[in-house]
Amino acid sequence: MIKEQILCSIRGCLDEKGVVEDAIAMAPYLSDRRGDFSAVTQMVVRPSSTHEVSNIVKICAAVDVGIVPQSGNTGLVGGSIPDGSGNQILLSLDRMNRVRDMDVLNQTMTVDAGCILADVQAAADETGLLFPLSLAAEGSCRIGGNIGTNAGGTQVLRYGNTRDLVLGLEVVLPNGEVWDGLRRLRKDNTGYNLKQLFVGSEGTLGIITAAVLKLYPKPRQAVTVFAAVVSPLAANEFLSCCRQECGDTVTTFEYMHRHCLDIVLDKIPGTRDPLGARYEHYLLIQVDSPQNGNGLRESLEFALEKGFEAGQVEDAVVSTNIEQSRELWRIRESIPEAAKINGSGIRHDVSVPVSEVATFLREGQRIVRHYLPNAYLIPFGHYGDGNIHYNMLKPPEMEIQDFRALEHELRQDIYHLVTKLGGSFSAEHGIGQLKRQDLVRFRSDVELGIMHQIKAALDPKNIMNPGKVL
Amino acid sequence: MIKEQILCSIRGCLDEKGVVEDAIAMAPYLSDRRGDFSAVTQMVVRPSSTHEVSNIVKICAAVDVGIVPQSGNTGLVGGSIPDGSGNQILLSLDRMNRVRDMDVLNQTMTVDAGCILADVQAAADETGLLFPLSLAAEGSCRIGGNIGTNAGGTQVLRYGNTRDLVLGLEVVLPNGEVWDGLRRLRKDNTGYNLKQLFVGSEGTLGIITAAVLKLYPKPRQAVTVFAAVVSPLAANEFLSCCRQECGDTVTTFEYMHRHCLDIVLDKIPGTRDPLGARYEHYLLIQVDSPQNGNGLRESLEFALEKGFEAGQVEDAVVSTNIEQSRELWRIRESIPEAAKINGSGIRHDVSVPVSEVATFLREGQRIVRHYLPNAYLIPFGHYGDGNIHYNMLKPPEMEIQDFRALEHELRQDIYHLVTKLGGSFSAEHGIGQLKRQDLVRFRSDVELGIMHQIKAALDPKNIMNPGKVL
Repeated sequence: MIKEQILCSIRGCLDEKGVVEDAIAMAPYLSDRRGDFSAVTQMVVRPSSTHEVSNIVKICAAVDVGIVPQSGNTGLVGGSIPDGSGNQILLSLDRMNRVRDMDVLNQTMTVDAGCILADVQAAADETGLLFPLSLAAEGSCRIGGNIGTNAGGTQVLRYGNTRDLVLGLEVVLPNGEVWDGLRRLRKDNTGYNLKQLFVGSEGTLGIITAAVLKLYPKPRQAVTVFAAVVSPLAANEFLSCCRQECGDTVTTFEYMHRHCLDIVLDKIPGTRDPLGARYEHYLLIQVDSPQNGNGLRESLEFALEKGFEAGQVEDAVVSTNIEQSRELWRIRESIPEAAKINGSGIRHDVSVPVSEVATFLREGQRIVRHYLPNAYLIPFGHYGDGNIHYNMLKPPEMEIQDFRALEHELRQDIYHLVTKLGGSFSAEHGIGQLKRQDLVRFRSDVELGIMHQIKAALDPKNIMNPGKVL
Repeated sequence: MIKEQILCSIRGCLDEKGVVEDAIAMAPYLSDRRGDFSAVTQMVVRPSSTHEVSNIVKICAAVDVGIVPQSGNTGLVGGSIPDGSGNQILLSLDRMNRVRDMDVLNQTMTVDAGCILADVQAAADETGLLFPLSLAAEGSCRIGGNIGTNAGGTQVLRYGNTRDLVLGLEVVLPNGEVWDGLRRLRKDNTGYNLKQLFVGSEGTLGIITAAVLKLYPKPRQAVTVFAAVVSPLAANEFLSCCRQECGDTVTTFEYMHRHCLDIVLDKIPGTRDPLGARYEHYLLIQVDSPQNGNGLRESLEFALEKGFEAGQVEDAVVSTNIEQSRELWRIRESIPEAAKINGSGIRHDVSVPVSEVATFLREGQRIVRHYLPNAYLIPFGHYGDGNIHYNMLKPPEMEIQDFRALEHELRQDIYHLVTKLGGSFSAEHGIGQLKRQDLVRFRSDVELGIMHQIKAALDPKNIMNPGKVL
């Protein structure tokens, strides 16, 4: 328990809205989307400025009280909630949600960490520009959390991960000092790249309070394709073909197995199979461009022709209007929901080199069959990034406890396979609390050693999001 | 002086080609391109494998002998040569020059740090792919140095800096351990991003021995434009227009002042003014695409039309063939040579937000006029990245010592201006020995503090490239 005297000092830094101590009011901040972790705190603080964040951190640093920074709390690895001890303060950035600066000619915007992603997108859009980070939780996740976890999403192939979209950061350090690294520069070689160290560190090295984001010209035309390919390897070859023919306009290159389509058609009203026949492997491809009339559709259709000729593509439908495009996207976006309706499952967020996706899918299936001969496999994800959500449903006849009893070993075998293929056991969701043991298992002692050295150097008292990542 | 016993141990790690102790043979490794620094060493070591690098570092770490890693030694800030003490070993990576792996379907290649950049480009080209890092020294610089200094070049606008082109690294740490971070992944959120910490750290945190590089589809068509714009601000507006109309195909957006063209026409045989009349501000723009026939030229010509209509562009020539394109590029590429022929100068490698370039050029001129009313200003550089090489020539009538006597103060005023505009005093050349004092002057104590914490944590004995950066 944190001493009342300390809580009192913290209250003194904040206005009325800045302190939440009522159990009911605190509940939403303590909810865990996965339901795996119990979170307890005596106080949620909601600072309204970087200065207030700094003051709170200084108080906590002086008495070694842990601080859990929280943004939208939409993460999937328990990274933004306190542990069960009650000894940690939860610091929410939800009141810091101003757009600080919009620089159209520099194609950047500077935002508070608590801005909701959809609001950031909208603010960019109003000026005729695009902030390309896009993911399912965009209506409620906040940009500080996106940066802290290096969020991925559906446009990484073209625009990169969140870390590629950040030009500058403001961070409150574990001693309460403020690092002003809010530079709006494309080039800056003045010492170590501190920014990228904080991006993806999940709040364990400091609290991100603001960021400079890169913007892009807004697409003015887009074409969506739903295609059946003969195999996962053919998908890879067709990816190369698309990039060759369509250049940087290939924004999305998503894969889904037939099983994904089946559960969507079964559970999501108003969806229909875009193709006339049944195939095993599907792609959802989006090309878009800020240019008007540059033959985007022609390039894509030419790529498809080549794909048909090379025997990679079996069938395809090309959207002719925005409604049709939305309908195709809806299938892809409904997979998680359809899976949830179907019941319990085991999920993996893994990545391998793009050239190893086909091998991963083949060998992964062998592992699953060993443990769960009747599991319904629903692999899907960002093929263009080598990032597969390798998920499966519990066989209906199986008891849930038997299913869960197998989960750990199955998961470890999948992670061993991923590691053998040079991949990652956490492609976009991060480590949080959920995957700490996996980090120890699947990353080398040398690599962990460097991480621990950095953590100890920057946060010697371990007050920044203790118990996460390392 | 390093004890003979230590030198003897180091010799024992290497074959005959691996040790250079003859003064004449060592001379090229000790040359400083700027001529500002004197470099002394007792031994140049040329390991042929990561294992050998590791063994050498272990010996040096045990007895606190400093190691200076060297790649192509083409840097401009004295970062890859030892100091004058003779107490540092120079470790050259020039024998480690294999392409370890080429993964076409993943669009990556894995290379030793000692590969010459042009060889890396050629190896990618052979497989039909592009490694887009391109800079003047590409025939002799080596990729390890490009990564260690986060090299920039002429295609940053589209493909990013070197750090954006690196997916994985192998690094020999200051204690001799090897970190194998050679992952070929587009997505990997498993702990801190160590890779980006080593990129750009100029060999002060470890020795990069290999890297995984990102490749891109090779352009199949390109169009070059040489345009006169009414002002630097008009250049910025026209950049937005080009990106809007030509999308990601805008690869290069270079600026040069008329004075640059004048010295090139004067000093470089075979060059000619591409435009019929005399203007003050010029742009060299390149658009290219892997696509065939997607209306690249039409998009660019449409952008130019809009630029004319908006009063941004005064005149322009669009290349119709590769020879004409080369001729236009030759003007830009000849500026440093023409300046050198003209004699002494003062150079700056600065960046500001793109939206501040016009202000920088205007206020920079005021500063220069104060110190050197007759200096011949030749600003040029990567406008699209906000990176201007803000250079000037010594007035012919001025004595060199009077010119040099003004240099320091003038430079500090320029750096203050850059800092005021949110810019960087070293956009792409780094810190090395040359700009250490500037780092202390123009970066905050908080920022320097974090850098020192990281350096002390990873290299507590300060044996990795001591005296550089920090």
